[in-house]
Amino acid sequence: MDANGVLSFSDDLVFKKKKDEVLNNNNDNGCSHLQVLEAEHQKDEEDEEEEEEEEEDNSIIINGDDPLDHPTIPGWFCEHCPQWPGQAHFLKVDKVLFQGKSAYQAMLVFQSSAYGKVFVLDGALQLTEKDECAYQEMITHLPLCSIPNPKKVLVIGGGDGGILREISRHSSIEQIDICEIDTMLIDVYKKYFPEIAVGYKDYRVNLHIIDGSAFLSSVPPGSYDAIIVDAFDPIKPDDEVVRSKLFENVAKALKEGGVLCIQAESLWFPSLDIQILISKCKQVFKGSVQYAWTIVPAYPSGVIGFLLCSTQGPKDVDFKNPINPIDSNKNFGVATQPLKFYNSEVHSAAFCLPSFAKKAKGLRSNN
Amino acid sequence: MDANGVLSFSDDLVFKKKKDEVLNNNNDNGCSHLQVLEAEHQKDEEDEEEEEEEEEDNSIIINGDDPLDHPTIPGWFCEHCPQWPGQAHFLKVDKVLFQGKSAYQAMLVFQSSAYGKVFVLDGALQLTEKDECAYQEMITHLPLCSIPNPKKVLVIGGGDGGILREISRHSSIEQIDICEIDTMLIDVYKKYFPEIAVGYKDYRVNLHIIDGSAFLSSVPPGSYDAIIVDAFDPIKPDDEVVRSKLFENVAKALKEGGVLCIQAESLWFPSLDIQILISKCKQVFKGSVQYAWTIVPAYPSGVIGFLLCSTQGPKDVDFKNPINPIDSNKNFGVATQPLKFYNSEVHSAAFCLPSFAKKAKGLRSNN
Repeated sequence: MDANGVLSFSDDLVFKKKKDEVLNNNNDNGCSHLQVLEAEHQKDEEDEEEEEEEEEDNSIIINGDDPLDHPTIPGWFCEHCPQWPGQAHFLKVDKVLFQGKSAYQAMLVFQSSAYGKVFVLDGALQLTEKDECAYQEMITHLPLCSIPNPKKVLVIGGGDGGILREISRHSSIEQIDICEIDTMLIDVYKKYFPEIAVGYKDYRVNLHIIDGSAFLSSVPPGSYDAIIVDAFDPIKPDDEVVRSKLFENVAKALKEGGVLCIQAESLWFPSLDIQILISKCKQVFKGSVQYAWTIVPAYPSGVIGFLLCSTQGPKDVDFKNPINPIDSNKNFGVATQPLKFYNSEVHSAAFCLPSFAKKAKGLRSNN
Repeated sequence: MDANGVLSFSDDLVFKKKKDEVLNNNNDNGCSHLQVLEAEHQKDEEDEEEEEEEEEDNSIIINGDDPLDHPTIPGWFCEHCPQWPGQAHFLKVDKVLFQGKSAYQAMLVFQSSAYGKVFVLDGALQLTEKDECAYQEMITHLPLCSIPNPKKVLVIGGGDGGILREISRHSSIEQIDICEIDTMLIDVYKKYFPEIAVGYKDYRVNLHIIDGSAFLSSVPPGSYDAIIVDAFDPIKPDDEVVRSKLFENVAKALKEGGVLCIQAESLWFPSLDIQILISKCKQVFKGSVQYAWTIVPAYPSGVIGFLLCSTQGPKDVDFKNPINPIDSNKNFGVATQPLKFYNSEVHSAAFCLPSFAKKAKGLRSNN
């Protein structure tokens, strides 16, 4: 870590193979010392012939509660959705690649039959190789393509590096700050998802190993053109985060006409009222506030939302009509592949809402 | 059935309570005589107090194969997706409302925790109360709002009546023909999903108990403004139906500038190549051919597609820009509720494709 609190990168992943020691470890000292477990399967990575014999070890039971509430099947990863209970999505596990626990959270990487490699944090699916493009490209380019000439961007969370990879495609960008508290998470992504973590290779990236809220309160007002938050559960109107200082600090840290993009709940979830969420955010963001969405089949309901907010500027940001398109034929930055999901048409379409989502639920005649 | 082969409606659902007799029945005579089982829970419909004691009877195991291929959990309905294997979606069953078998197929109706009532045909989830709006409204209004003044429409399949309900909202319509071969299916929908089957109450509806392909070959050329097909598995380029006489007969049965809308596979499925599907259909339909999609969280991947095709007319149909909008404030037809999902914005957005879906897979650098 340099004088500015910026960590330079080294491949400092520490592997320990004592599974019980790690999983039973209660390290509450809050430091970022890594305790990492390489799953037993991993040591046989080059030994594909032994794969079948190991099948029993692939059993993953994430939810050990009442099977009528959270079903479990050996050999399958199961995710249920507390926001929309009574359903569960199962993915077949071909091979467990990694299990470990940092000071902050438990991590699991497995090879799935359907979605390629999958990353799981504290039991919740974070991303899959198959559909991460739909999330990373949209959460990044929806804000960055809505404003002219973005130069300085802050990412809070997003430790996988995929948002960095996407920001990297913008040639106007001069500085990319990222706040990620869990260095083990970064290292696991670098090892198992190099095409995502490639974002860290961009020379404009500064990694700050610090809590995003603490970082935000320390930056001078008007620092950033865009802030992308990928650190919480998807927000909904009742969330603490909407009412908290974080939103106010984001607004302060943005330039005039600067934009925030943050994950928001799926429009299918009964707990989300988009209109109320928007009206709450308008109390903080005096420019534009819009809800957009994209399709991510590995996520509950197959959909995830985004909240886009802008501070007051010379004129309001028109999120629906991107003014800063990416030329998909130009290959700028560190991404090794062209855009898979995002284009200007999909950008505008993301703001089109089904009729039921256009009205505040309290006002609906039938809900 | 009248002289024109049109069946008038009566509530002729026959209930028999001998579960084993029905489930073990192998009625191969092809007639439409109904053999219907009302699930044991149903007889206690008014007796909610007994519900807990009956919990064991709610066990539904649809897929009894190798649990590593198709996981099963008692008390949960499981759907896996042959087109995208290695995943399964589970819905918690609160109460089985109906199980039965017609001459054609096995039916199951259950009350789910997450999606309201659910209808299952031969083990495949057909619709749920929660999200049927997204499917029914889109498969109907995408074609009907794309052409001026539609008068005569044919529905092939769609026995639940939801497409009829949606067509009914169009005041220009004079005649709605529907071909559905399984009268038991209609009756089950009428009993358990009255807000969907309400479509049959429209006075313009004529039900033809006949195979859609046979019906099509008997109608005079140029009969219909629109044909909506909801009878097969979602189509993909290799399907028999694309190469079959059915598509040619649909094209013949349409007026000049008439439109077809048929379910197509999810854009996430590895087996779908949208560009090849479109180019195959252009061999039959000389007007416009487009792929659109909507979000249906109970379906595998959370997305389902539609193929929209038009015959040659005075000018090509511009599917992306609806010219015949529905006034959502006017309440025309038999639907008891206003539109929940469809609006003109969502219509246009449905044709916007992620970048990966815009190229033929064979031409992609990375797939």
